[in-house]
Amino acid sequence: ADADARAACEDRNGQLTKPPGALGQLEEIAIWYGSWRGTARPEVRAPQVIVFAGNHGVTARGVSAFPAEVTVQMVANFKAGGAAINQLAQLADARMDVHALELDRPTADFTQGPAMSEEDLLAALRTGWNAVDPASDVLVVGEMGIGNTTSAAAICHALYGGEPGDWTGRGTGVDDEGLALKTAVVAEAVALQGSRDGLEVLRCLGGREIAAMAGAIAAARVLRIPVILDGFICCAAAASLARLHDQALDHAVAGHQSAEGGHQALLARLGKAPLLSLGLRLGEGSGAALAIQVLKGALACHSGMATFAEAGVSDG
Amino acid sequence: ADADARAACEDRNGQLTKPPGALGQLEEIAIWYGSWRGTARPEVRAPQVIVFAGNHGVTARGVSAFPAEVTVQMVANFKAGGAAINQLAQLADARMDVHALELDRPTADFTQGPAMSEEDLLAALRTGWNAVDPASDVLVVGEMGIGNTTSAAAICHALYGGEPGDWTGRGTGVDDEGLALKTAVVAEAVALQGSRDGLEVLRCLGGREIAAMAGAIAAARVLRIPVILDGFICCAAAASLARLHDQALDHAVAGHQSAEGGHQALLARLGKAPLLSLGLRLGEGSGAALAIQVLKGALACHSGMATFAEAGVSDG
Repeated sequence: ADADARAACEDRNGQLTKPPGALGQLEEIAIWYGSWRGTARPEVRAPQVIVFAGNHGVTARGVSAFPAEVTVQMVANFKAGGAAINQLAQLADARMDVHALELDRPTADFTQGPAMSEEDLLAALRTGWNAVDPASDVLVVGEMGIGNTTSAAAICHALYGGEPGDWTGRGTGVDDEGLALKTAVVAEAVALQGSRDGLEVLRCLGGREIAAMAGAIAAARVLRIPVILDGFICCAAAASLARLHDQALDHAVAGHQSAEGGHQALLARLGKAPLLSLGLRLGEGSGAALAIQVLKGALACHSGMATFAEAGVSDG
Repeated sequence: ADADARAACEDRNGQLTKPPGALGQLEEIAIWYGSWRGTARPEVRAPQVIVFAGNHGVTARGVSAFPAEVTVQMVANFKAGGAAINQLAQLADARMDVHALELDRPTADFTQGPAMSEEDLLAALRTGWNAVDPASDVLVVGEMGIGNTTSAAAICHALYGGEPGDWTGRGTGVDDEGLALKTAVVAEAVALQGSRDGLEVLRCLGGREIAAMAGAIAAARVLRIPVILDGFICCAAAASLARLHDQALDHAVAGHQSAEGGHQALLARLGKAPLLSLGLRLGEGSGAALAIQVLKGALACHSGMATFAEAGVSDG
């Protein structure tokens, strides 16, 4: 981020016709955004939403409430414009791209061995990296992949320890028995695969769409494109980057707190306060896409309001 | 609300291409909104934001961090388009109206006697009632009035009891000494004015802009225009209606939880869960105007998504 732009944003924020701090988190994200875009009066004009899809070998263990073929069916739904993320991307005037990553070649069941080879991991990271439009000015990455909350829970358990149950949630809606099975599968996978390294955890326990999200978030860092993180799976991808470098997520805010079991704890580990908390647990980038509207509101105020001097208002 | 429309909304919600409940509060507000608009596929096309302004005799007691002339200065700022609410109304494609209520005739200091005569109260309620455009499809009412968090705190203390400190916050930003003074002023006012009746509390402890907000919210109920409530002052106005009739606020949701001291407790009394919680404490209708975006997101999903049958997706 640009220290001069941050100072300029803070200076402007202090002059706007409102009591100091009265716009709360909106002030913070406007300053954060301006510091990444290098301007004191930033605007969002070109949001990009990218949905990555992948299939997971671990679905053979019965960890999801939906059959694995739903991944490819939902990709068709994204392409036809019928999913929640299509509506929310349109509301945000965002460009939306869909990348299906070798759906006919699921990852390996990670309770038996690594989910991906190094080659597969690199290909997925590269797909994500290359999917980011350098002309975008805010990025949301979402996902579709039946079984991927199990993968995300395993990533978190490997990176942060604790109990497998701390990170395992109901996903698309498994019952108590399903949740117990899923928790056991996460425990088994992490016991088998010992690495705590960000990329190796991604390879052994992740999925192609999760690795692609990590690649896109990393590319956005280099391109100085601010990122709004989505829910549990997106944040698990982000967590692998945070393990590689302390400041890897400085260009990212948490779009929302999901209802998925481990997300609150994961946001705490990442040190991110969510913009929204509406009980969403859909994935696809839906919560983050809705949070683009909050960012737009913050920037509309920051860049559009009159100063005390301009408006002839007494500043207390 | 329309029971048939609610049933039709719930039926549609159950068929959309997402796991049941995965859009959380967005599903609830889409169904609520559709039931008030009488349609299973509602849209927001004509939001209205109304800002009411009034002056308060109680400012003579030194309860605000800003001088009373800021009210009229901010009205000029609203009219010139320079305030936060102008930016947020524009982002929501909302019509915005500003009604300044006799700014040169502040209410009486309510630590000495009733803030308003019956005639003044009725005039303010009528201004609010008449300000609502019957063609609007969602309403936000906001306010400007130096001293009005003191008035709102007194209203809440009169309606709900508890300690004066439960309802008194820092407003535009008073220090500890100012907060102690303000709390004492609230205690004094409520001790003097004994009524617990909704309209009488509004007359004795309210302000013209607060009464106008109540009038507008009541008019919207009759017109079946859903309302998004703003922060502490707006909710205090709404609370006076709730005291008059249990179902007076069924057509309203809480747009946000403000950082102002008593707002969380007040939302709990009203039984409303906020859509946003971003630490705003500006008033003007700002939090509710931003929440229009959340409502639009909810309706975009509800009315725009494909069903399982339309998309050929397996429903688990």
